[in-house]
Amino acid sequence: MAKNDKNQDNNPLKKIIAHAKEYGFVYQSSEIYDGLQAVYDYGPYGAELKKNLKDLWWTSMTRLNDNIVGIDASIFMHPLVWKASGHVDGFNDPMIDNKDSKKRYRADVLLEDKAAEYEKAGEQDKADALLKEMGRLLEAEELDAVRELIVSEGIVCPISGTGNWTEVRQFNLMFSTQVGSVAEDASEIYLRPETAQGIFVNFLNVQKTARMKIPFGIAQIGKAFRNEIVARQFIFRMREFEQMEMQFFVRPGEELKWFEAWKESRMKWHKVLGIPEDKLRFHDHEKLAHYANAAADIEYDFPFGFKEVEGIHSRTDFDLTQHQALSKKKQQYFDTEINKNYVPYVVETSIGADRLFLMTLANALVEEEVGEGDKKKMRTYLKFHPALAPVKAAIFPLTRKDGLPEKAKEIFNSLNFDFNLIYEDKQAIGKRYTRQDLIGTPFCIAVDHQTLEDDTVTIRHRDTMEQERIHISGLHGFLAKSCSASEIYKQLS
Amino acid sequence: MAKNDKNQDNNPLKKIIAHAKEYGFVYQSSEIYDGLQAVYDYGPYGAELKKNLKDLWWTSMTRLNDNIVGIDASIFMHPLVWKASGHVDGFNDPMIDNKDSKKRYRADVLLEDKAAEYEKAGEQDKADALLKEMGRLLEAEELDAVRELIVSEGIVCPISGTGNWTEVRQFNLMFSTQVGSVAEDASEIYLRPETAQGIFVNFLNVQKTARMKIPFGIAQIGKAFRNEIVARQFIFRMREFEQMEMQFFVRPGEELKWFEAWKESRMKWHKVLGIPEDKLRFHDHEKLAHYANAAADIEYDFPFGFKEVEGIHSRTDFDLTQHQALSKKKQQYFDTEINKNYVPYVVETSIGADRLFLMTLANALVEEEVGEGDKKKMRTYLKFHPALAPVKAAIFPLTRKDGLPEKAKEIFNSLNFDFNLIYEDKQAIGKRYTRQDLIGTPFCIAVDHQTLEDDTVTIRHRDTMEQERIHISGLHGFLAKSCSASEIYKQLS
Repeated sequence: MAKNDKNQDNNPLKKIIAHAKEYGFVYQSSEIYDGLQAVYDYGPYGAELKKNLKDLWWTSMTRLNDNIVGIDASIFMHPLVWKASGHVDGFNDPMIDNKDSKKRYRADVLLEDKAAEYEKAGEQDKADALLKEMGRLLEAEELDAVRELIVSEGIVCPISGTGNWTEVRQFNLMFSTQVGSVAEDASEIYLRPETAQGIFVNFLNVQKTARMKIPFGIAQIGKAFRNEIVARQFIFRMREFEQMEMQFFVRPGEELKWFEAWKESRMKWHKVLGIPEDKLRFHDHEKLAHYANAAADIEYDFPFGFKEVEGIHSRTDFDLTQHQALSKKKQQYFDTEINKNYVPYVVETSIGADRLFLMTLANALVEEEVGEGDKKKMRTYLKFHPALAPVKAAIFPLTRKDGLPEKAKEIFNSLNFDFNLIYEDKQAIGKRYTRQDLIGTPFCIAVDHQTLEDDTVTIRHRDTMEQERIHISGLHGFLAKSCSASEIYKQLS
Repeated sequence: MAKNDKNQDNNPLKKIIAHAKEYGFVYQSSEIYDGLQAVYDYGPYGAELKKNLKDLWWTSMTRLNDNIVGIDASIFMHPLVWKASGHVDGFNDPMIDNKDSKKRYRADVLLEDKAAEYEKAGEQDKADALLKEMGRLLEAEELDAVRELIVSEGIVCPISGTGNWTEVRQFNLMFSTQVGSVAEDASEIYLRPETAQGIFVNFLNVQKTARMKIPFGIAQIGKAFRNEIVARQFIFRMREFEQMEMQFFVRPGEELKWFEAWKESRMKWHKVLGIPEDKLRFHDHEKLAHYANAAADIEYDFPFGFKEVEGIHSRTDFDLTQHQALSKKKQQYFDTEINKNYVPYVVETSIGADRLFLMTLANALVEEEVGEGDKKKMRTYLKFHPALAPVKAAIFPLTRKDGLPEKAKEIFNSLNFDFNLIYEDKQAIGKRYTRQDLIGTPFCIAVDHQTLEDDTVTIRHRDTMEQERIHISGLHGFLAKSCSASEIYKQLS
């Protein structure tokens, strides 16, 4: 697993990966067959955490904004969609092969690695110059010159050690497959490399059937696929991943105002969900994609540095105009307020659900020293926001006799319809607390002999390890208040 | 759209398709490019309805059963998974081409259509004999004899009108794609044709990391893909579809007891969700798949007849044993109660989320005569269980003046965090009620001048069209009680 991680015990990414595996959050895909590279499966607690994150995003978008609705478009789309969007012709990485090792590399990554070497050696000027030249050549698609740059920089293949390179060629990142069994009808289709196009081609369907008025948004959660050449950093860059995108359709000329508004709104969302302010930053794009007139990333301070979690892009009318041209179907909106027909401009917010998951997990993993003197020890727990935690509470009878299990199960059954709970009656209670800490359960409810007398239980708080005694009748209200997403929504609006 | 439907105004499937399109439930995929066959997109109300169904299933499985946990495995898996499962070698349909029209057909469908002709002509014996012979030949893989049967029955191509047929060949239904950019590492992988294998290969990971004891289950919701030759009946049979599967791992010898238990449990689920008893039936499989020792379908009376919505299968230890053999990794469980190691037996429940959606929509669509005398008219509405309805309530100010919109928005904002709502202040209130009926909103809340005086509103019930007056302070409780899934969960347990 995770071949690219440095083999250090205190490598924070390695710790996260190990914790994710051991406590049922993330497994390597097809692990019994030695895995499938850059593909992962979510285990029991990971699946719950991811579902909670997705539900929170979905509700934040579609419910807290009464001008945003959701859709769920298919992964398969008509191949012309990707012609119109530019992906068939332009969604490429520049590749180069070493003739001796037969290994293939991304040309830009070889050059970036070289620049990093210069930087490490204190030669910042050389690094900057190299990156600038590389950017210029790639933008101009001067692939021969890119190859020459690799050769002149003396870059060799780490496997063969030689500089015996092929041409640089463009490699399309879309996965393709054949659909249709009737021989002459069979056609090549693609697995969508982004969910956004499912929204663009449904723009008028949604506008009409849900009777939306500009400005309005369409939100979607779904899988996307990219045949990444360099897929690494655990679930940060996978070949199969999940996107949560929202396209907001606005009047031309108003897009930059909305771009700023969505930047602020999305940043606030991450903070309300518990990411500290100093671990988040904006990164404004200087070089813009051909379809954008403004773009910014929200970056999180991952164990491998500040990296994009979410992008906010002002995509102009590029996509709708392209679809209009290729499909010959008008993609216009009649704005009754200004009595005008136009192709709307689009501001999108695009977040990787798996990156959001990794950020949430990385941010939650706490190792701290507890106890005093001889009893000093390290304690590990996952400090999830209770609304995100996979399990909301664990119910423990102190012992397995005297009717305590029966009483505990009764409590379990009274809360179970509304909260995800765990019941556990084996092992010492200390061990049971530790186990819940490791999966991030915010509350443990212990049933003891006093419970049989006065119907009170102890609630042990994950973060402080403090315990308080409350009446059973107050448990539902306590959990509802602490774990419900409604409290998050109130902060967001 | 929906080429295969009969062109009749009162064709019930056609009505459902038209309603689904017009009111934002389901669109043809890539419609502006004239669609992609057998692939559909869910619109705003469809996406909400599907999400509600998925959430209900997920919670019913993972929360109401404290020995079932969920996972979320990837669509991409190691190709050996499909070798072990038998899909690479055996997941085929028998195909035959007409040499004149160049059209390809499923050999079994041609013969079934012929049998249906006999049946229609009252020749039941001939129909039965043909189907029996076809079954025998296909099972024995005597493809030449299948071709001879087609020829001897005088079956001709509906396009060319000739009986000039090619050989019958097997056609694999899995979609494949190339993964990996490094030339020599690139390998053919498949889009999973079922979600079950993602559970089987993670069996030990889940058992260990979530510390499960047999009997226990693993549930999953996810996309699957089949290159169906005959894809039809709207979203009933699609090339991209969504499954909700649960594999229940049991002690060998106990599987048939659990098979019966799950049959009953799953049938109850559909009834509690509002499907009438006489529209549901079991269909026990007489002919079993090679991996099963018992199998039954839950069938629903669709507009095109009783068809499978969900399958319950006793899959024996087939899959785990196959994976154990091919991966050389033991797939065993140590049962402390009987002090024995064994490969568990598996009982699965497998439901198509899209079929469940179609059943729910078909069952909800009501057309009834209302009014008397001259005022008699047809009324159409979607009678969803309130817990399933895409929108729980619509809030209407009676007019757009006198502060009524402000009051209505205030109510909207007080309920919005917990319920999916619509606010609407345009058009006559009767029209607004009709609109909500058509998307299945169970309650409409009207704010009128009396509201300003005494803080009461009217609630109009979708099914009865009756109105009642209640105090604003009671709205949250009313909606929570009526629309919450907790009430469903209580009936289920």
